[in-house]
Amino acid sequence: MNIALIQMKVGADRDENLARAASLSLYASENGAQMIVLPEMFCCEYRRSAFLTYAEREGGEVTRSLERIAKHTGAYLIGGSMPERDGDALYNTCFIYDPSGNRIARHRKAHLFDVDIKGGQRYRESDSFSAGEGVTVFDTPFGRFGVCICFDIRFPQFIHQMKDMDFLAVPAAFNMTTGPLHWELLFRARAVDEQIFTFGCAPARDEASSYVSYGNSIAVSPWGRVIASAGAEEAVLIVSADPAEVREVRAQIPIGKV
Amino acid sequence: MNIALIQMKVGADRDENLARAASLSLYASENGAQMIVLPEMFCCEYRRSAFLTYAEREGGEVTRSLERIAKHTGAYLIGGSMPERDGDALYNTCFIYDPSGNRIARHRKAHLFDVDIKGGQRYRESDSFSAGEGVTVFDTPFGRFGVCICFDIRFPQFIHQMKDMDFLAVPAAFNMTTGPLHWELLFRARAVDEQIFTFGCAPARDEASSYVSYGNSIAVSPWGRVIASAGAEEAVLIVSADPAEVREVRAQIPIGKV
Repeated sequence: MNIALIQMKVGADRDENLARAASLSLYASENGAQMIVLPEMFCCEYRRSAFLTYAEREGGEVTRSLERIAKHTGAYLIGGSMPERDGDALYNTCFIYDPSGNRIARHRKAHLFDVDIKGGQRYRESDSFSAGEGVTVFDTPFGRFGVCICFDIRFPQFIHQMKDMDFLAVPAAFNMTTGPLHWELLFRARAVDEQIFTFGCAPARDEASSYVSYGNSIAVSPWGRVIASAGAEEAVLIVSADPAEVREVRAQIPIGKV
Repeated sequence: MNIALIQMKVGADRDENLARAASLSLYASENGAQMIVLPEMFCCEYRRSAFLTYAEREGGEVTRSLERIAKHTGAYLIGGSMPERDGDALYNTCFIYDPSGNRIARHRKAHLFDVDIKGGQRYRESDSFSAGEGVTVFDTPFGRFGVCICFDIRFPQFIHQMKDMDFLAVPAAFNMTTGPLHWELLFRARAVDEQIFTFGCAPARDEASSYVSYGNSIAVSPWGRVIASAGAEEAVLIVSADPAEVREVRAQIPIGKV
């Protein structure tokens, strides 16, 4: 299975962001990607005013764009995340499509990012969003995928509820405080805890932004080894991941049977 | 709180091991240690025949030695582990003493080390031991301690049951396969997951042994930073750990409230 992590630049112009997601996804599929992952908030800047401006119901411009990307590339698409409106509530939501453009799953970020780090990042995501409920998994010919969003990865009990996963894909946007501290650690930890491949897909770093993404999109094997990682710049990582390695690790260190 | 991790040599002679544990513990307390941790199977070699030879009921030579060490040092003592006999069963057990030599807690290894790594370590601990049940915590003037043994640390769900811990001490003996792969990762991961200090205490490496300990005893802060680590050789790490740092991390990244 070849999976692409699209570490794209995200700017103020939504339509430019959608066009960039489409063209980089096409590049990825032309280079063998069968599964494409976009970053958290790939369609708008990571700030409250942008969330309010660009929030849409499912069926709006953003999800129609995602459908088209899946169809054009013929790949599965884990559509990063977007501000989703549902009634009076907003959610930080990932929509997921099969290669025909059918929406097959949806994850609403379940753990909102409320931090206040001395001398570092402050943010209260719960001022803008409601929390989703429950875990999200879906099956593909390559194996079972779990999807969660960013801060969700800090909760091993939550991740453990995604039963019989082979792969965990995480649209995310760690920042310049939590990124250097915990980004690689958490993706390696969840890979080893659950004996799965983990994939983190972040926006490229933009120092001029009000919320600076750490970037460093990453792929980790079920042994906990980093098998690919990006730096700060825009990048498309295309990674080959064989679910046989999941079975191998589970046979050799059978923690799932305890 | 000053805690000492006694990365001692462990040989075939039980009485020599007990004497070495006593003298290194005295060294640690003379250098400020208020809490002392011994490694997994500090009193005998890590192989089935040694377990059968040296297994004792509580109240035997080994636990009497541990009592004396606690009293002589005036420190809390997390007594590594020993083969404990109870009826027909053997357990891999850690006995824990207060500075007066009272036994205040006991942990029986709950997850037995059964692995078969291609080209690497093979071991079936369940051929020798029964698994303990449940988690172990105890309170001290420095804060609440959790104790588990080695393979137990691979189970975040288990560790999460140790409610309101400040410190997790883990007598352990990773090997030359799992050590380089996962030792540091797991101690950093559990520190960040639970926002606690973690301490891993291993026997010194002995290349001539049938089971070669990785060593590398380690202390990690609740931010996930390695604050001290040993190499392969015999060493006493004395580490200062302030539970105020636990409260600080929990206030700044409040994952415990979600």
